[in-house]
Amino acid sequence: MPTKTAEETRCASAVSLLETAKLDALLVTNLHNVRYLTGFTGSNGAVLLLKDKPAVLFTDPRYTVQSQQQVTCRVKIAKGPLNAAILQEIGRARLRRVGFEQDNLTVGQMSGLTKRKPAKVHMEPVTGLIENLRLVKDAGEIEKIRTSVLTNSNALDAALKQFKVGMKESELAAEIDYQNRKLGAEAPAFDTIVAAGERAALPHAQPGGTAIGPGILLIDMGAFQAGYASDMTRMVHVGTPTPKYKKAYRAVLEAQLAAIAAVKPGAKTNAVDRAARSTLKQHGLERQFIHSTGHGLGLEIHELPRLGRKDKTRLAEGMAITIEPGVYIEGWGGIRIEDTVLVTAKGCEILTPTSKMLRVI
Amino acid sequence: MPTKTAEETRCASAVSLLETAKLDALLVTNLHNVRYLTGFTGSNGAVLLLKDKPAVLFTDPRYTVQSQQQVTCRVKIAKGPLNAAILQEIGRARLRRVGFEQDNLTVGQMSGLTKRKPAKVHMEPVTGLIENLRLVKDAGEIEKIRTSVLTNSNALDAALKQFKVGMKESELAAEIDYQNRKLGAEAPAFDTIVAAGERAALPHAQPGGTAIGPGILLIDMGAFQAGYASDMTRMVHVGTPTPKYKKAYRAVLEAQLAAIAAVKPGAKTNAVDRAARSTLKQHGLERQFIHSTGHGLGLEIHELPRLGRKDKTRLAEGMAITIEPGVYIEGWGGIRIEDTVLVTAKGCEILTPTSKMLRVI
Repeated sequence: MPTKTAEETRCASAVSLLETAKLDALLVTNLHNVRYLTGFTGSNGAVLLLKDKPAVLFTDPRYTVQSQQQVTCRVKIAKGPLNAAILQEIGRARLRRVGFEQDNLTVGQMSGLTKRKPAKVHMEPVTGLIENLRLVKDAGEIEKIRTSVLTNSNALDAALKQFKVGMKESELAAEIDYQNRKLGAEAPAFDTIVAAGERAALPHAQPGGTAIGPGILLIDMGAFQAGYASDMTRMVHVGTPTPKYKKAYRAVLEAQLAAIAAVKPGAKTNAVDRAARSTLKQHGLERQFIHSTGHGLGLEIHELPRLGRKDKTRLAEGMAITIEPGVYIEGWGGIRIEDTVLVTAKGCEILTPTSKMLRVI
Repeated sequence: MPTKTAEETRCASAVSLLETAKLDALLVTNLHNVRYLTGFTGSNGAVLLLKDKPAVLFTDPRYTVQSQQQVTCRVKIAKGPLNAAILQEIGRARLRRVGFEQDNLTVGQMSGLTKRKPAKVHMEPVTGLIENLRLVKDAGEIEKIRTSVLTNSNALDAALKQFKVGMKESELAAEIDYQNRKLGAEAPAFDTIVAAGERAALPHAQPGGTAIGPGILLIDMGAFQAGYASDMTRMVHVGTPTPKYKKAYRAVLEAQLAAIAAVKPGAKTNAVDRAARSTLKQHGLERQFIHSTGHGLGLEIHELPRLGRKDKTRLAEGMAITIEPGVYIEGWGGIRIEDTVLVTAKGCEILTPTSKMLRVI
């Protein structure tokens, strides 16, 4: 008997949760979950996970060849909207309680399904069932995240070799994305942030025409490689940093290291956040830290667990998370330091190899 | 009195539709619509359009500075989830009938809103209200699309200068995206398609490790510049093309030109599709054309109108659309030719300047 693919193993895990949730089936419409369960990477697809039968992937004729190449489960090519084919399958399999992903399906899609479903079928809202499976990465996923993180770090080095004072933020961002692609990534994991000077006070600054002059430079970058995300923020200082900068940099680095030290199986995610926040408080900077300490990553750049004040997920071996405290001061700038970190059996491994020494160019 | 910004004019147009829809307000959660109405480009935002008062943008503290810089309407910075702030505003303004975008709000988000809304408030599903406004582009939008299209064409030329036989699909795709960025784009408008040889039979091929050898090469690329999309597909033949290729290329080009000739105000979109399809039929290739003829583009790469068999939108001056018939033959390859086209007062203008002569490199 052939060994199961990773996707088949994941489907089996998901199916075992159907029993607990008292569902006959789960309609998976979130495309990241579809990819996780089947390997299918097309832009139109849904999976019907069934309790007693193999899963079915629904897609359209554009993906006939691709779906054959990518998936091992049953595939239905729908000529029209997927809904009709899905409902037909639901009717044929005589299902009663069918879960749907309420955080993915829109109200409009749902009312389309409801109108035409067999009367005996009950659609039950489900939250985070597959997302919770995705929390803990399997060996193949960890390998992919590791590769993505390495690529991303190499891309920063390669891009900074092209850096010249006066370069536009958008040019450096383009260089970073290009280097990531040349090194094997499919795409940026998010819009690369390159924020110079005061603009670093915007945690999500969009790189623009600002020339990068002497002063603060914040770079937040990530890649998708083989579908998996990496995420890193590094500060570069162009020219000699001010004492204020050095002091704030040390505070953020200390907070980041304190948060990393708190990462271990069994720890709650808000304890990790608290470690960063209380360190910044000692430096009088806690009010300048206006976001949470981190987030899980994998097939998406933001996935579970969250690492904010109110998040109480218990960390477990195999979770991949970012640790990224920062401080933001309007009119001055900002500092953020971020690594991708893997929860291990006894603590954690910082996957990001890039140095966090105060960097001056 | 200062002249209205484009965004204020759009809000006013949207508000005038509230009356017709018998709504006191519309909650806009689709981020493209939020950008369209306010200019806000953050990743977390919603707009409450009100019948008798200025619109309100809701976002979170990460975007305090950015929202001030980008928008002229009222801004509420919500410390927690936006829902609570939105419901507070709905309560305070004593609204009764509040529309929501049913194709954007998920079932989960909706049930969160419903649970906590004031009893007197009725949430009414709305489809495509803002999307329909976005169908016809204003002068500023057309200018941005024009710029995006030019950048995209220049990027193809620049990337092909770097082309060498044996280059991987993914390398050429990276080069294309890099050139677009260097020329002023923020991001690719979609995952750039570079499909060599037989892989061109996959309409949405993901560029991979395949070396580009002599034979078919399909390139489908687009950029977002100042938020607006461009979209173009060109075929390049590496080495001397076969008679079969030349014949199919001519057929697709003829179909594309026939579709473009059908583009004019008042024409239905399915008439444009039919023009392409019937031309391919004359060449015995209609069954190989497995998608629709085109789509609108603007703030999104795919927006209204659709140009498929069953789509009956009447074209109007100011609509920006793609015209992209193609044929796909498993085991052989595929051919698609695509321009971005603007509907004008009397017909249309092909915005894409890149030649469609059979190209051999």
